[in-house]
Amino acid sequence: MNIRGHSKLKSTELLERATIVVPGGMYGHQNASSLPAPFPQFMRSGQGARVVDVDGNEYLDLMCSYGPVVLGHHHPLVERAAAAQAKLADCQNAPSERMVEMAEAMVATVRHADWAMFQKNGTDATTLCCTIARATTGRRRILMAEGAYHGAAPWCTPRLAGVTPEDRVNVGYFTFNDLESVKAAVAMTGDDLAGIIVSPFRHDAGLDQELVDVAFARGLRNLCDETGAALILDDVRCGFRLNVGSSWELIGVAPDLSAWSKAIANGYPLAAVLGSDRFREGATSVYTTGSFWFSSVAMAAGVATIEALRGEDAIATMVRMGEALRTGIALQAERVEIGIKQTGPVQMPYLTFDDDGRGNHLLADFFASKALENGLFIHPRHNWFVSAAMTEEDVEVALDATQKAFNAVSALMRSRATR
Amino acid sequence: MNIRGHSKLKSTELLERATIVVPGGMYGHQNASSLPAPFPQFMRSGQGARVVDVDGNEYLDLMCSYGPVVLGHHHPLVERAAAAQAKLADCQNAPSERMVEMAEAMVATVRHADWAMFQKNGTDATTLCCTIARATTGRRRILMAEGAYHGAAPWCTPRLAGVTPEDRVNVGYFTFNDLESVKAAVAMTGDDLAGIIVSPFRHDAGLDQELVDVAFARGLRNLCDETGAALILDDVRCGFRLNVGSSWELIGVAPDLSAWSKAIANGYPLAAVLGSDRFREGATSVYTTGSFWFSSVAMAAGVATIEALRGEDAIATMVRMGEALRTGIALQAERVEIGIKQTGPVQMPYLTFDDDGRGNHLLADFFASKALENGLFIHPRHNWFVSAAMTEEDVEVALDATQKAFNAVSALMRSRATR
Repeated sequence: MNIRGHSKLKSTELLERATIVVPGGMYGHQNASSLPAPFPQFMRSGQGARVVDVDGNEYLDLMCSYGPVVLGHHHPLVERAAAAQAKLADCQNAPSERMVEMAEAMVATVRHADWAMFQKNGTDATTLCCTIARATTGRRRILMAEGAYHGAAPWCTPRLAGVTPEDRVNVGYFTFNDLESVKAAVAMTGDDLAGIIVSPFRHDAGLDQELVDVAFARGLRNLCDETGAALILDDVRCGFRLNVGSSWELIGVAPDLSAWSKAIANGYPLAAVLGSDRFREGATSVYTTGSFWFSSVAMAAGVATIEALRGEDAIATMVRMGEALRTGIALQAERVEIGIKQTGPVQMPYLTFDDDGRGNHLLADFFASKALENGLFIHPRHNWFVSAAMTEEDVEVALDATQKAFNAVSALMRSRATR
Repeated sequence: MNIRGHSKLKSTELLERATIVVPGGMYGHQNASSLPAPFPQFMRSGQGARVVDVDGNEYLDLMCSYGPVVLGHHHPLVERAAAAQAKLADCQNAPSERMVEMAEAMVATVRHADWAMFQKNGTDATTLCCTIARATTGRRRILMAEGAYHGAAPWCTPRLAGVTPEDRVNVGYFTFNDLESVKAAVAMTGDDLAGIIVSPFRHDAGLDQELVDVAFARGLRNLCDETGAALILDDVRCGFRLNVGSSWELIGVAPDLSAWSKAIANGYPLAAVLGSDRFREGATSVYTTGSFWFSSVAMAAGVATIEALRGEDAIATMVRMGEALRTGIALQAERVEIGIKQTGPVQMPYLTFDDDGRGNHLLADFFASKALENGLFIHPRHNWFVSAAMTEEDVEVALDATQKAFNAVSALMRSRATR
């Protein structure tokens, strides 16, 4: 892969065109302007665990489209189901049978779920969970962890431009894994607590990932039981990568509502809210809809994704590949005597360098650049994603790239030390 | 079509299954529970101007998936472009060349636009317009027409369940086509007016449609020029059905920002915000994104849709078919001596019956039922949509169904009169 040397001529040319017709050239999480220089702004194709950018550089893919691709690109079972449905119809005057099948599949798969509703964005799902919590409880206040990402609507988007203070007046904050901070926030809401929204683990961008403390999760469950508020699990990023079911089934804590998107249809645009019977009436009372929310192709892809996840024992594969990757990277770092931390579940790895310039991530940026130039697509400030399409050989390819990247970091550090 | 008589066995059976796993059985604008009994809850397929429900009933389609289908179902040029892109990739680590092409195509097509951003839902687009208006002006207040539909987020959704008062504290209301009411609302905002959002014509569900008064539109433009607020055109429902360009180009009024979705990719899930250079910096400052916003297949479909709209002179076809339909319906009503009103642009027709039970729409419901049973898919309380796939023969088929429906309404009215 990438044998002709890394080029980004075409990507740069496209970005010049984009800069004329798109504000800032690009926006959102796929804006490459915040990434190190070698990163391409435009991609061309993908197959299995490999992706190719517009300049023909091929990469082993450890970003998986920031999560949606869980079985690998162009998974045959998913593509077949989507193509069969596309021949019939996608967006119609009413949903198709596929929507019932997908709702049944989600309810059968996720333990806490008695019902399902579908949307297009993860943000649709997290926002709708809050709305259903409010409709059910008749209360207003939602608590979330400070710094957590629950989407890009005014109530939660990480940048404040265009957001009014009123958009957040009903949102309170706590510290992830700090139950006392939640209790304090709950106390401040008085009798107005509608819900607590939380991600399965702390996956804030740019920070070491932090697995959930089981006592913390249980504590949230108890607080919600005591107050009647909804416990909302934001499984948008983790859902179906850690478990074929809710990510907190692994620790035995059941939310009342959960938000899903990304991986549930292996890259086809779909989101979902799942809930328990206590919230069914509230969910029915809310008016929520979208032009493409009932489209069938993504739902057909979703049904096939769930089948394939089970049929291929996909989680076990991702765990195995993720563990091999983590072990290999740890060994490489040790050998070149570079202090690193690897955090998060092995399927969603995150790598930081000790003393990496107080959050500047200069070493992480340099490492990611060198990995990219050697054919591995990772991100310096966002967790990576392992897909079930990865093989042992792919892990070797990945580790070859990380080895070269570590060597480059080591050389950089030595040159700095001797200056 | 529908020669074996209208059946809804399979649709009913699916709805029974759905009722277990979906709150209320279905939600949003595609919830058939508010439609007359013969309407199916589930569809199977579509081709050109024809759609088939899960029971095999075939209909001439005058709903066009509530707007997205503008060239007809499975338009060959659009399907070819989408399939070619799908072979490469859809959702990737970064957008593809298709995004640049689609942004260029939108900017080249829509006169007021200097730039484009893409999303998935019409609600994403209208909400982002408000956010960009706020980011640019540093102000908070948005004005909208009372009763207008601008999406299903808490700030604008038509039902209040789960909505907090704070969600709407920065929204003010005026009456469509009543400039004095806008001036009064503007006066009340003081110096805090960020934007005025308005649809190209009044297409509120359940009410006679009302074309925009040109003086009203110009008055809004002047008010925004005087105050520095953004004039936001919500072209989600009308865009590319009235004009290949902004719907207000037809009256020579340019908005600052416009929201698009539905028809721009002929049924593939896509939305867009277009804006002028004055709002580019504000748009750049806002953090907005979605997992599937950069997906390529819908953008490839969008580029092809714009080409086909132009290449086939699709607007002229829709106008011609819409006019033939309107003339035919008017004649039929006259002949059976039933008082009706046909309102809205001919491509987005809406039919009401005089003295139809004070908003109960009983006659409209009955008429729509009979039309449906005779093979015409319309809606009793929502505007219809003509597609460019309609032919003169299709208009005849539609008019045959409306004739039978008028006859049934006439018989019903006579039986009531003699009771």
